[in-house]
Amino acid sequence: MEVDRDEVILLAHGGGGTLTHKLIKEVLLPELGNAVLEKLDDSACVSVDRNELAFTTDSFVIDPIFFPGGDIGSLSICGTVNDLAMQGARPLFISMGLIIEEGFFIRDIVRIVRSARQICDMTGVSVVTGDTKVIPRNGMEQPRIFINTAGIGVRLEGVDVSVSNARPGDVVVITGPIGEHGTAVMCARGNLKLQSTITSDMVPLWGMVESLLNKVPSVRCLRDPTRGGLAAALCDIASASSCCIRIDEAKVPVRSEVRGACELLGLDPLNVPNEGRAVVVCAPDDVDDVMSVLKSHPSGRESAVIGEIYAEPVSLVLLRTLTGGERLVEMPSGENLPRIC
Amino acid sequence: MEVDRDEVILLAHGGGGTLTHKLIKEVLLPELGNAVLEKLDDSACVSVDRNELAFTTDSFVIDPIFFPGGDIGSLSICGTVNDLAMQGARPLFISMGLIIEEGFFIRDIVRIVRSARQICDMTGVSVVTGDTKVIPRNGMEQPRIFINTAGIGVRLEGVDVSVSNARPGDVVVITGPIGEHGTAVMCARGNLKLQSTITSDMVPLWGMVESLLNKVPSVRCLRDPTRGGLAAALCDIASASSCCIRIDEAKVPVRSEVRGACELLGLDPLNVPNEGRAVVVCAPDDVDDVMSVLKSHPSGRESAVIGEIYAEPVSLVLLRTLTGGERLVEMPSGENLPRIC
Repeated sequence: MEVDRDEVILLAHGGGGTLTHKLIKEVLLPELGNAVLEKLDDSACVSVDRNELAFTTDSFVIDPIFFPGGDIGSLSICGTVNDLAMQGARPLFISMGLIIEEGFFIRDIVRIVRSARQICDMTGVSVVTGDTKVIPRNGMEQPRIFINTAGIGVRLEGVDVSVSNARPGDVVVITGPIGEHGTAVMCARGNLKLQSTITSDMVPLWGMVESLLNKVPSVRCLRDPTRGGLAAALCDIASASSCCIRIDEAKVPVRSEVRGACELLGLDPLNVPNEGRAVVVCAPDDVDDVMSVLKSHPSGRESAVIGEIYAEPVSLVLLRTLTGGERLVEMPSGENLPRIC
Repeated sequence: MEVDRDEVILLAHGGGGTLTHKLIKEVLLPELGNAVLEKLDDSACVSVDRNELAFTTDSFVIDPIFFPGGDIGSLSICGTVNDLAMQGARPLFISMGLIIEEGFFIRDIVRIVRSARQICDMTGVSVVTGDTKVIPRNGMEQPRIFINTAGIGVRLEGVDVSVSNARPGDVVVITGPIGEHGTAVMCARGNLKLQSTITSDMVPLWGMVESLLNKVPSVRCLRDPTRGGLAAALCDIASASSCCIRIDEAKVPVRSEVRGACELLGLDPLNVPNEGRAVVVCAPDDVDDVMSVLKSHPSGRESAVIGEIYAEPVSLVLLRTLTGGERLVEMPSGENLPRIC
């Protein structure tokens, strides 16, 4: 079904699932498209003179803005740093655009930019340019803040990671348990008032990715499973690489608290956003080196091999279930996806 | 008076005047500050290997989103292209982050990105990376759209323009009549229902700036008088260059329709945003070349010499009025500044 241009935007258009993809592919790309944008990679790779740069942008509209394990400020740096890291690019410079609704507390702005700074310092990046806008508060609700960050990185020489590089026989790794960011944010929502010990997995991934690419420059794909979760990341790789991905449910790490929260919230952990995990695809000969680097890093200690790449059926992701069956993992559709990135 | 951290954000914090400056200098810079950000130039200048890059970001929250002479889409490209041009940088790559309130018409998104594309094509830049988020509509008002663009440019070799480079004896030029963007937008607001023939001056300035810098690489300062208008741009230069700027009211071009609209709206044309003008400061020996290049370009035909740089009184902007007096031009304070960039 095509996007009807007389229709209006639904929340589901922003969920990171099929409706988001339709909006991008049927409405935005035909207008703005060019060879770089159409790759739809986490960052654009562009050349300036002899430098291969990665350039990315992300807007953060998370609710609530403070959650266990972070806030919209630290998230806005992590998200952009990780998008650069997923292209094998060392993050260098960040721009930060704040859009603030009138009535927002200045002390909350201080808290937010302070935690953004901490992630910058951890990663060796700087916010070098910024912009601040204030907009009227629409209605009676709590004033909101939205943050856009864009980032520039330099790609490591000799590295060619892309979601289109997976080949039959390759191995699929996830760098830790899934579903923690999304469930932590959902449980922190005021109207739920859930008691939980779940903390977001949010962390800047560049340090670990740099070690990985230095040791194994032949890594094929890196993708961070943010909006749409692990399901969307795997669907992106299967589609871009025209291959099939088979994963084992038993091997996908999910903490029991997260599994419990997902049951309560009616969510599939595969669809829940993460902010400190990466999907790594590598050749079978590289998997021991990949696992040894990842497991030696604090953010990758719980890395696990979860599946393999097959030639067919093309562009599909299949899950071997705990009960021994096999089911299709679909690109999540927007309706099931809370807006929590 | 310091910013009180227990206070909340007011619309005036976003107007581009003194309150905006306080928020940036007292709240944001102490947290995020570094040598590049603290320059508060229109773009950050950073080096990657041997390339001097300019990097800038701007969020567009204009109301209404369609106005005579443009819309939020074309504006989002012009604004960022012009910020790069003001650093003497050829604009190359743009990122675009859309934040859309649910209920927004998809056909309006098409119209907006299409007009963004037109400006890209005029300027030779591409949107190479993007992001789309959807947020709940807060309250019963019309759904809104906010656009952030960030841009990367490469600085022309041998050019060193900066707001801190003005020297006593230099000449101050404006590249056309002022106040058109702001008054066009104000008159287009639904609750005003003003009939007017005023069209925004919005235009990408790179072509003209490139010709100017090729002919006169010794140009000292370039600044586009956007938020806060010509007054803010001149105050920025006087302050950064520790000099005095004297301008002649009689020489500052203002169309009669704009003057009339400003009287009606209670605005000073000096404070009204422009989106297609630049302040150029150059040595007196260069002024003939500067004026000849500017006047030969469609966007600069009405360029005018409006004043000179003096050593003292330091950091002040003074206006010789039509009646022969002299008054201080102050950095506009937020309260007087409608949010129309």
